[in-house]
Amino acid sequence: MVKVIDQRKLPFVFELAELHRAEDAVRAIRDMVVRGAPLIGVTAAYGIYLAVFQSSAGSWCKEIRQAADQLVATRPTAVNLKYAVERMLREVDCRRSREETITRLFELAAGMAEEEVQRCRQIGEHGLRIIQDIHEKKNREVRILTHCNAGWLACVDYGTATAPVYLAHDRGIPVHVWVDETRPRNQGARLTAFELKEHGVPHTVIADNAGGHLMQRGEVDLVLVGSDRTTRTGDVANKIGTYLKALAARDNRIPFYVALPSSSIDFQMERGEDIPIEYRDAGEVIYVEGWNEDTREPGRIRVVPEGSGVANPGFDVTPARLVTGLITERGICEASEKGIRALFQK
Amino acid sequence: MVKVIDQRKLPFVFELAELHRAEDAVRAIRDMVVRGAPLIGVTAAYGIYLAVFQSSAGSWCKEIRQAADQLVATRPTAVNLKYAVERMLREVDCRRSREETITRLFELAAGMAEEEVQRCRQIGEHGLRIIQDIHEKKNREVRILTHCNAGWLACVDYGTATAPVYLAHDRGIPVHVWVDETRPRNQGARLTAFELKEHGVPHTVIADNAGGHLMQRGEVDLVLVGSDRTTRTGDVANKIGTYLKALAARDNRIPFYVALPSSSIDFQMERGEDIPIEYRDAGEVIYVEGWNEDTREPGRIRVVPEGSGVANPGFDVTPARLVTGLITERGICEASEKGIRALFQK
Repeated sequence: MVKVIDQRKLPFVFELAELHRAEDAVRAIRDMVVRGAPLIGVTAAYGIYLAVFQSSAGSWCKEIRQAADQLVATRPTAVNLKYAVERMLREVDCRRSREETITRLFELAAGMAEEEVQRCRQIGEHGLRIIQDIHEKKNREVRILTHCNAGWLACVDYGTATAPVYLAHDRGIPVHVWVDETRPRNQGARLTAFELKEHGVPHTVIADNAGGHLMQRGEVDLVLVGSDRTTRTGDVANKIGTYLKALAARDNRIPFYVALPSSSIDFQMERGEDIPIEYRDAGEVIYVEGWNEDTREPGRIRVVPEGSGVANPGFDVTPARLVTGLITERGICEASEKGIRALFQK
Repeated sequence: MVKVIDQRKLPFVFELAELHRAEDAVRAIRDMVVRGAPLIGVTAAYGIYLAVFQSSAGSWCKEIRQAADQLVATRPTAVNLKYAVERMLREVDCRRSREETITRLFELAAGMAEEEVQRCRQIGEHGLRIIQDIHEKKNREVRILTHCNAGWLACVDYGTATAPVYLAHDRGIPVHVWVDETRPRNQGARLTAFELKEHGVPHTVIADNAGGHLMQRGEVDLVLVGSDRTTRTGDVANKIGTYLKALAARDNRIPFYVALPSSSIDFQMERGEDIPIEYRDAGEVIYVEGWNEDTREPGRIRVVPEGSGVANPGFDVTPARLVTGLITERGICEASEKGIRALFQK
């Protein structure tokens, strides 16, 4: 059994969900009990482990393949998911015993979780330098804008975009984070604000619409976001709305960095336009979920009238030309094929 | 007594609010019972009328000045408000009788309401040409993205940004409108969607974050928004988030037009940076208002956890360089001092 935090109810209710079977992992990823590229990769890895764990002796090898197909189909944009499942499958040898496979898959999944934590820690160290430089230059608090949640909730621990922020804060560099609420699911207002508050990092939640204005007024020193998939040429798919912030950063000469573990780089893909963009359920736009203060329970409110259509793309692609740099576990590089290759060729 | 639609409950509840005294008009504008630059100008004009109507015989002229100060202070960004109040004050002559003043002020306020309607009708005719041209070029449905509500609800009738859309639809040009939900108050999802649905115009509500992606994918032919104040050089203050859409339109070579009556041009102001930007209550970001389907009543839901700060700028400024053109009641012009002067010099 694997336990995960049910992120749908955060920050208002802290609840763990138990994953007993591969189907539970499929549902947890699809329904966004867990979200964030690194975390859904790790959850999918554990899903493969659960598939063999729950299987019957005679059909376990077939059941793993079925679970793999279901897991990969849950969310199309993040490439970590596909990578994680493929890596787990490579560990499967149907000639081995079911018991040995269970042990091997558990260890691999746990190792992948640990790897993501290490990557985030290294991203933190590399990204810290950017914040440090700004602090030294401006000699005041560094104001960072982030979109969605690329924090420890998305990444097992530390987070990608938040790792440098936590590290800066811990080492005494004054930071202030502008948190985009990140409609439609409000991962910024709900998860990033919650994380930052727990960590004691000064922050302010804003409507997604407000970031451009703050940049125009000189209130933002740095934009720092995560990524669900980055092509080998440096085009970045991330939560819908990221592209708009990249445009505003460019227009106001503000550095725009993307923090990402190499597990989210798609080395096969050249053009950002080719990244599949997930269209999610209309209900996410029609209703806003949150905390009902009257009933003291999670609840939702309708904001779109009946009879109006809704479209809900989950991600957009920020072209490499708008990205100042990529912060990876191996260091910072230009968002280009050359930059990425220099860091990641063997 | 003056009756207005209480827009805070739309589209879920249709309710009229009665304004008996100048203070009622002050409250209606401040609390956004009425909103939209042209409409708050007209409401303020009626507020001046109510001030003298409710006044005592001896002090009416003083009471008008007090009401004027209160009305102008309600909302700083839209310039219509200030213009309307100043124009009403110019009609006031303390040597005249209170009764004569009541009649004159009522007629002037009613005349100003009618003027706004005429301006919107003319904006519709001029803007229609842009939609027509795109339709002829592309020979298919014209896809228009709009932000906030610049519809008849904002403008007594027709609307500014929506006037060309309604006219195109009525004359058989196929249009489809992408409606930004427009956080934090969701005037797009709640008011623009409601208006378009009532008028039978095909439309789709999207999160504010989605517009850039749709433009990248070729799903938007034209961006059409209103304005709360436009400087004489063509810088446009409009609902927070407008600037981000202007950047995306530019990046994707999509025409970005602003529809505005001359009552919202600030002929005194040169630089957009000097337009005062209203910071509104944090509660607008912390809570989302809408329709509670359980109680079948308007309600709200908390989306920002306690302990997190919130900032809520209500408007941003789109620099003239990003504006393809201004659609005014006198025709379409370049967003520049030269363009505006050519249309509006006597």
